[in-house]
Amino acid sequence: MTDDSRKLLIGRSKMDGLVSMAMMRWRTRVRHFHSVSGVAVPLVGTNMVASPLLYLQSGGPTAVLNASAFGVIETARRLGRPLLAARNGLAGLLDGRLVDTARVSKDDIALLPTMPGGSFGVSRHMIPAYYEAPQEWLAVRDVLERHNIHHLLLNGGNGSMGCAARLAEFEQHTGYPLSVIGIPKTIDNDLLGTDFSPGFPSAAKFLATSMREVVLDMNSMEQQRVFIMETMGRHTGWLAAATTAAARPPGDAPLLILLPEVPFDPAVFLPLLDQGLQRHGHCAIAVSEGLKGSDGLPVAESRHDVVYGHEQLGGAGAWLANLVRLQCGITAHVAQVDCLQRAARHLASNVDIHMAYEVGCTAVEWALNGMHGVMTGIVRQLSATRTWEVVPIALAEVGDLERQLPLEYIDVANLGVTPACLDYLRPLLAGEVSVPYGSDGLPDYHPIAWPDV
Amino acid sequence: MTDDSRKLLIGRSKMDGLVSMAMMRWRTRVRHFHSVSGVAVPLVGTNMVASPLLYLQSGGPTAVLNASAFGVIETARRLGRPLLAARNGLAGLLDGRLVDTARVSKDDIALLPTMPGGSFGVSRHMIPAYYEAPQEWLAVRDVLERHNIHHLLLNGGNGSMGCAARLAEFEQHTGYPLSVIGIPKTIDNDLLGTDFSPGFPSAAKFLATSMREVVLDMNSMEQQRVFIMETMGRHTGWLAAATTAAARPPGDAPLLILLPEVPFDPAVFLPLLDQGLQRHGHCAIAVSEGLKGSDGLPVAESRHDVVYGHEQLGGAGAWLANLVRLQCGITAHVAQVDCLQRAARHLASNVDIHMAYEVGCTAVEWALNGMHGVMTGIVRQLSATRTWEVVPIALAEVGDLERQLPLEYIDVANLGVTPACLDYLRPLLAGEVSVPYGSDGLPDYHPIAWPDV
Repeated sequence: MTDDSRKLLIGRSKMDGLVSMAMMRWRTRVRHFHSVSGVAVPLVGTNMVASPLLYLQSGGPTAVLNASAFGVIETARRLGRPLLAARNGLAGLLDGRLVDTARVSKDDIALLPTMPGGSFGVSRHMIPAYYEAPQEWLAVRDVLERHNIHHLLLNGGNGSMGCAARLAEFEQHTGYPLSVIGIPKTIDNDLLGTDFSPGFPSAAKFLATSMREVVLDMNSMEQQRVFIMETMGRHTGWLAAATTAAARPPGDAPLLILLPEVPFDPAVFLPLLDQGLQRHGHCAIAVSEGLKGSDGLPVAESRHDVVYGHEQLGGAGAWLANLVRLQCGITAHVAQVDCLQRAARHLASNVDIHMAYEVGCTAVEWALNGMHGVMTGIVRQLSATRTWEVVPIALAEVGDLERQLPLEYIDVANLGVTPACLDYLRPLLAGEVSVPYGSDGLPDYHPIAWPDV
Repeated sequence: MTDDSRKLLIGRSKMDGLVSMAMMRWRTRVRHFHSVSGVAVPLVGTNMVASPLLYLQSGGPTAVLNASAFGVIETARRLGRPLLAARNGLAGLLDGRLVDTARVSKDDIALLPTMPGGSFGVSRHMIPAYYEAPQEWLAVRDVLERHNIHHLLLNGGNGSMGCAARLAEFEQHTGYPLSVIGIPKTIDNDLLGTDFSPGFPSAAKFLATSMREVVLDMNSMEQQRVFIMETMGRHTGWLAAATTAAARPPGDAPLLILLPEVPFDPAVFLPLLDQGLQRHGHCAIAVSEGLKGSDGLPVAESRHDVVYGHEQLGGAGAWLANLVRLQCGITAHVAQVDCLQRAARHLASNVDIHMAYEVGCTAVEWALNGMHGVMTGIVRQLSATRTWEVVPIALAEVGDLERQLPLEYIDVANLGVTPACLDYLRPLLAGEVSVPYGSDGLPDYHPIAWPDV
């Protein structure tokens, strides 16, 4: 570790409350790359000293998105740079709806990592390629110019990183210098170029904990029982697969997982279900909302989401329960976990909170170091001490791409995961970060009312 | 407090680990009644000294059922009486499937309160009135006589208390002396004669915490959003009502609750939904699985549960989402929480764990004090120190009856609850009891393999 990075860590350890205590448990190293082949663009000729940074939260919220925001704000303050943020991500940037983080007290800022959601508001709006929507690019230029902003920090998933990759060519298209840094975030864990996406470990920890608890509940029952947990995951099975971390051989009921990566085959599923019921009397199943049949179509009816533009699936659990009832004569219990899994800050993974914070801090440092066109990717160090590093990943290499669960993580024949998958998952779930509870016995969240610029 | 009860509390405070620390935060008083009008039956002429007690877990599991089991086992050991338990409640009693708690170490027993589920196994089997099934009564008599059992402790909900009330007349019907004590338990909170049923506060805390978290998530979104949380509750709305503890005025999206106690009326619901969307852009809804229409029938299709004999509803959330889509053109998110809410030991209420333990301890003390035909009911002391008392309630007065959410707790016009309801709910949610987490980042549960007698 360099002296500089050590100083950074010391600075960061001042984070208030429980999170700072938890963070001391890991030694995190942040590699400083001063250029990345092909993407480092020096920004010259602009008034950089007084120029504020702009931070955006994009896509669906997670339990730890605000920990990244905290890292961004804290680091900008430490380095003496003003930080603005857009309300509702790119939608707010287009409309010029900016807020000034400087007018919120340090004490209030310190509460950010305790809250799920996206404190500045999020949006699924993406800015298309310049040639498709030049008017949007010019609208963005107007807003940036008005506030003398030359650094954009975009915190989001693979769609947002695609947008960040496009915006990294802002100067080429508009003549206005803009450095862009991506900060990874998505509970789906389908973002390339990072060991995991902040948000996923906490969702995974909540799902696996709940699965372990429900299996204990199920094992108490005397009669044949099938429990189906429908997880999020339209195109990838990371969240459903994460429930396998709950398995505790021997004696536990088996846990079958049904993933979008593996077309559903009743000829595989039904014998395994029957075998589980025969041997244990019970069977637990985790199914991704995006489970597909052999025809490649979602098993549950696809519904158009009029609100978000995204297709909104769901109902794979109910569909499966119906199949189990018809084929086995058993009424299954179905939990559709929905937003609970991405908002469950009360059960956040310490690794997740910690690294969400780190990728936020690092993004600011890199932006002020002249880096550009990169995402703060996370690399797992395969040492016994389980450290994590933050390294630059070219946005162009990750944007709009999707990381499916690798085939070597899936045990297709047994509807399970391989030991390699568990080796991947377990370090992500490590550590607990409690939230402050109020006198009402519930998490004591204090949403911040950000003032307009 | 008497010296005796003080001694008991000192004895109880030796409970290992986190739970014992948490328990120190309340001063609980246990009133000792040596007779209850009409229900105290002295048991004479039997060899009581060597007679083991028998403990049964009945009905659906909860997050704190095993805390009651811990109280029962610990107290029996302290008072020097052997304690047997039936596997799978009354079903196991009928079959003579008994286990011996003496052969499990103190250290293993101390882990019981950390685990959801029913460690001995539960069953929904109830023993009918003597005249309906004398053969079952004689089968029970055979088992009791074989093991010289004259004290039965039945831990369950209103159906189980009805069964306990019938079995309290065991000697009249079979000539075999048997004292029966009921121990309350149900997440539904629909048991009469007790301020709350152990299991409910923890389920309520989980639901309210999740609702508060999801509302923060929802408030981050820029567009109109409807979130529907379907809770358990076939006939009563206690669990759906508990989510209102999450509300944090001002600024939060409104929270509408739909209860089995109030027939669903679209003419009330739709304007409130529209008003919430207009004013806040978002609306959260908690709906009981047993929501009924104006015809008194469940809004979602009633499905016969081939496993448990109970009707198994569910689908009220999906039904409501469909209504919202058709009437407002908005696709709602739906979470069907299902078994997660009753197994969420990781978020148990300290009051719940503590009182589940107390009602278990007290049941053993009362049984050995010659009490009979009563349930260990919980009384709330309306003092500033929020103490709880355990008092005897005649089984005949609570068995098979159902406590609905009182009308004075429901704000029918606004689909909300009254301040009186929140005053009732809030003390129940107080206090956190963490679980031991393992190196895998998940609760480290150690199920006990109880040895056969």
